[in-house]
Amino acid sequence: MSEVYRHTVQYYETDKMGITHHSNYIRWMEEARVDFLARIGWDYAKLEALGIFSPVVSIECKYKLSTRFSDVVSITTAIEEFKGVKLKIRYIMTDEEGKTVFEGKSEHCFLNDKGFVIRLNKEYPDFYRTLAELAENGR
Amino acid sequence: MSEVYRHTVQYYETDKMGITHHSNYIRWMEEARVDFLARIGWDYAKLEALGIFSPVVSIECKYKLSTRFSDVVSITTAIEEFKGVKLKIRYIMTDEEGKTVFEGKSEHCFLNDKGFVIRLNKEYPDFYRTLAELAENGR
Amino acid sequence: MSEVYRHTVQYYETDKMGITHHSNYIRWMEEARVDFLARIGWDYAKLEALGIFSPVVSIECKYKLSTRFSDVVSITTAIEEFKGVKLKIRYIMTDEEGKTVFEGKSEHCFLNDKGFVIRLNKEYPDFYRTLAELAENGR
Amino acid sequence: MSEVYRHTVQYYETDKMGITHHSNYIRWMEEARVDFLARIGWDYAKLEALGIFSPVVSIECKYKLSTRFSDVVSITTAIEEFKGVKLKIRYIMTDEEGKTVFEGKSEHCFLNDKGFVIRLNKEYPDFYRTLAELAENGR
Repeated sequence: MSEVYRHTVQYYETDKMGITHHSNYIRWMEEARVDFLARIGWDYAKLEALGIFSPVVSIECKYKLSTRFSDVVSITTAIEEFKGVKLKIRYIMTDEEGKTVFEGKSEHCFLNDKGFVIRLNKEYPDFYRTLAELAENGR
Repeated sequence: MSEVYRHTVQYYETDKMGITHHSNYIRWMEEARVDFLARIGWDYAKLEALGIFSPVVSIECKYKLSTRFSDVVSITTAIEEFKGVKLKIRYIMTDEEGKTVFEGKSEHCFLNDKGFVIRLNKEYPDFYRTLAELAENGR
Repeated sequence: MSEVYRHTVQYYETDKMGITHHSNYIRWMEEARVDFLARIGWDYAKLEALGIFSPVVSIECKYKLSTRFSDVVSITTAIEEFKGVKLKIRYIMTDEEGKTVFEGKSEHCFLNDKGFVIRLNKEYPDFYRTLAELAENGR
Repeated sequence: MSEVYRHTVQYYETDKMGITHHSNYIRWMEEARVDFLARIGWDYAKLEALGIFSPVVSIECKYKLSTRFSDVVSITTAIEEFKGVKLKIRYIMTDEEGKTVFEGKSEHCFLNDKGFVIRLNKEYPDFYRTLAELAENGR
């Protein structure tokens, strides 16, 4: 999971302060999460085909340094915590010089298409084990 | 239909040029269209409850003057053309001094939830008549 | 400051889950903050004219209930903490039934146009007092 | 210039119809334009460093087929017309099967940092020639 997701800052992501608008980092967290889940073999398309939805329960963001149009931001994603119900993912974003520009966390639950919480260990034990192992290794 | 929809330019809608990013006008056209359809008694919620979807087929935009953060933009919406299948709507946006900042058009078709074109005059004659009358009066 | 800012969920703010995409709440926090600062007499335009910029330092979001297209969300904004350098604002968003759908916090610093931290108590004592009093009263 | 720009549809770009919201194609046109200008040696950073701004004057979009989350859209960009003042660019977007999903055009003028129109042939003859040659060859 050591691979890194890259996002190039778009012109439409800047604001009148001349820097990236802070709301976009939330979207890049999603981009990196989608990429992360695909890399561990559980891409969104597969999850949604199985009727698994994972809405965001909470978000935390620390803005360290501003980024600008055309900057390439590298996003490292890892599982912070997973005990079976809630999945907590952390994100570190660095600029081209390797400086940390942003640190974030997102917390997710897993719902079926009727909106009920899924017990992953019973219903999708493979997915459960994958997440639990990554959480244990802090990856 | 002489009422006007108002949108206040948000900080997150600006870009590094210091003005409103041009992509947002497309979104304001949608805001004004949603408001327009509600005023003529056929709001989106009602349409979607009936299984009527109206995807955008084409868009035309003329950017006349730039707008800036906290500007209040007034949007006048009218039906440009409707002959039963495609609905063409036009939008004129003015600033607080009454100057035209933007002119746009959007074209829509009507699909059922299986993706097939709906003949409004047969399936929803009330909606058909409302649109046809507004088109005739250029409103 | 007991007034409330209202935002109507737009179609373009929904995602394929059929609900409001979570990134939009960050933008509504900004909308409510802009409105809040205007109501206490220190609108963004005035701040930027004085050369005061207030970038976001951190964000916390708790998503309680999903919202949907055309929902009207009421946003109550208050100062959580202000000790002279960092301003912490909290936001509570409720739906039309009064249920809390979202709780958030944002933290800001104040920079001049050269990017240096401003000591508000020395440079803008009026603004400092306004914020300090609101913080004390939890408003 | 035969290279193609690729954009992967993000989850946050979808709407409740389950497809890509139409406003995003305008943003992808910008992404492809930024990439195109960089490839011909006149990237945005260089233009803005020289004090050249190129606001959008008009946009035309034809939505042919819908796209969905995780689709990879290929965007071919070419100069449609350039006679010295206005630059008209056209965009063709295709899906992974090669089907055209979108056709668009954007028109731009060139302004200096005081907002006055730049005569490219006098002030930036190199840039003028590059654009004129590409326009002639329809590339």
